[in-house]
Amino acid sequence: MELIPVIPDLADADLIARLQSAIDNKTKPLGALGRLEALALRIGSILGSAQPVLEAPQMLVCAGDHGLAARGVSAYPSDVTWQMVENFLAGGAAVSVLARQHGLALTVVDCGVRRDFQARPGLVSRRIAEGTADASAGPAMTAAQCAQAISNGREVVRALPGNALLLGEMGIGNSSAAALLLSRLAGLRIDDCTGAGTGLDAAGLARKREVLREVLALHASATAPLDALAAFGGFEIATLVGAVLQAAEERRVIVLDGFIASSAVLVAQALQPAVLQRCVAAHCSAEPGHLLLLAHLGLDPLLNLDLRLGEGSGAALAWPLLESACRILREMASFEAAGVSRKDA
Amino acid sequence: MELIPVIPDLADADLIARLQSAIDNKTKPLGALGRLEALALRIGSILGSAQPVLEAPQMLVCAGDHGLAARGVSAYPSDVTWQMVENFLAGGAAVSVLARQHGLALTVVDCGVRRDFQARPGLVSRRIAEGTADASAGPAMTAAQCAQAISNGREVVRALPGNALLLGEMGIGNSSAAALLLSRLAGLRIDDCTGAGTGLDAAGLARKREVLREVLALHASATAPLDALAAFGGFEIATLVGAVLQAAEERRVIVLDGFIASSAVLVAQALQPAVLQRCVAAHCSAEPGHLLLLAHLGLDPLLNLDLRLGEGSGAALAWPLLESACRILREMASFEAAGVSRKDA
Repeated sequence: MELIPVIPDLADADLIARLQSAIDNKTKPLGALGRLEALALRIGSILGSAQPVLEAPQMLVCAGDHGLAARGVSAYPSDVTWQMVENFLAGGAAVSVLARQHGLALTVVDCGVRRDFQARPGLVSRRIAEGTADASAGPAMTAAQCAQAISNGREVVRALPGNALLLGEMGIGNSSAAALLLSRLAGLRIDDCTGAGTGLDAAGLARKREVLREVLALHASATAPLDALAAFGGFEIATLVGAVLQAAEERRVIVLDGFIASSAVLVAQALQPAVLQRCVAAHCSAEPGHLLLLAHLGLDPLLNLDLRLGEGSGAALAWPLLESACRILREMASFEAAGVSRKDA
Repeated sequence: MELIPVIPDLADADLIARLQSAIDNKTKPLGALGRLEALALRIGSILGSAQPVLEAPQMLVCAGDHGLAARGVSAYPSDVTWQMVENFLAGGAAVSVLARQHGLALTVVDCGVRRDFQARPGLVSRRIAEGTADASAGPAMTAAQCAQAISNGREVVRALPGNALLLGEMGIGNSSAAALLLSRLAGLRIDDCTGAGTGLDAAGLARKREVLREVLALHASATAPLDALAAFGGFEIATLVGAVLQAAEERRVIVLDGFIASSAVLVAQALQPAVLQRCVAAHCSAEPGHLLLLAHLGLDPLLNLDLRLGEGSGAALAWPLLESACRILREMASFEAAGVSRKDA
């Protein structure tokens, strides 16, 4: 198997026309369901059906630790990564609660957390190492580690049922990796890509920016997507890159979450641009880089709730809107079927 | 029974403090669930519980016809009102589909539609007349009709179970009534309050604005909330005013929908300001008056999806977010319970 699958263009003019016609014939003024109509069109296009059915949606939360965290780029200690993995599995985290609410199967992948977990249902072990190396001293991962993590992500998704993948992540320090990837791959100033993450104060944010400028300069030659990914990390982002590519190849609907999950899509679409046709942006986070990242990808987020949690929580919150879009297509009556008059001539 | 109940202030400093403390102790950075946290606080405050449970949510769709529709203020013929009532009851309208998705009990109230409906489950008959009178020739309804409609709304809600009321409406011409109410009660220019409704073209919109300026001038003395409501109509809006007042008195969570449903809240809060403490704005519609109305009420909408359908469709789409807010309060673990470290000192 190639590391990076070829993702073909989805364009099917006939299906798009059938979807648009079905939407326009529903009993409502033209366009009155606003962005839900565009969402229905996209999901129908991904799933190749004018009557799309979302099946067995999978929430995939990839977790990993970051060597760069030792440089004080996060408000929380690295131990919170493994503690939150335990919390996900025990059902007490936000994403656990929301996945339960919406019937999303939750899989947590240990991509390289600094902790040995006991095996248990819902936890998949795909550890590369005990956290990435410190990106301010050298590459966060080797090229081989990066490739292994991508391959792991593809393999994990291949084993999951269903036709929709929701992206989640956990990793103290990973908003730094996402900021570095965004700055490098989108050509934006690192200061603009850097935010408070889990809640740095002004002094902490200034320190984080200083560290990230230094890291970016150290890896000035890492301009290709996979080189940048290896340079900045993390294992959970690389695993998500593989998950996104595999889901795209299988024509699953890919639901982005916040800044970090979206940074994996940034890398994946830099490798295979047609990945984006399979993506739905769930929300725009309060972390300032996320708005820039979504704008760079040309994706319009469904929710704007000032979330800045990650985990997949925003993807889970937006999920019912995807289900609604499909039901509108499948269940709403047409003007003809309902005997409703059309607009006055 | 008085026509207008007294709605007391909800302020319970102790409960608010307990809710805020519970939210802040959940396993997430402070404030990381953004507007979902404010929503949880509001619902907990309305239901008087730090562990709120939403029970038997009721989608109430009030329908009525408007005499002013004869003046060409809508893109659709008046017959669409009764046709859509049939569609709601047959399960083929957007609100029917979305109510089914989310387990919302759907009740349609005939407040004065130009059609005799056969009795059937889900339809409640509270007809005032066969549509309102033409507001460009005199008041849309008499003071007695207006009072009767308000009383009907209160009675309908009193008979419904549950602790949450979602507002919906149907009535060709009713975006004109909403625009007139907004202009009068909020002191805004009628042109700014007037939009394309179900889809007028530029010429149609210009005609609608001309008619509404004329109607507003005709009823220059109708400045008190109930006088304005009687002058501009409609029966479905007045019934919703009663429904909102009753729901507020019973401390139900009131979920606004679009421009027309929100105009009923505008009237209700002009009578009893504390009504607003029980309200959640589901979405901001593409109908331009809605943004002005929500700003006037100081309500921050959950969704911005360019919807302009009404029916309660936006309220239904936002519903899972209310449910999520309650589950966050009830089911998320605290730092202590989950053994998760707090922010670095």
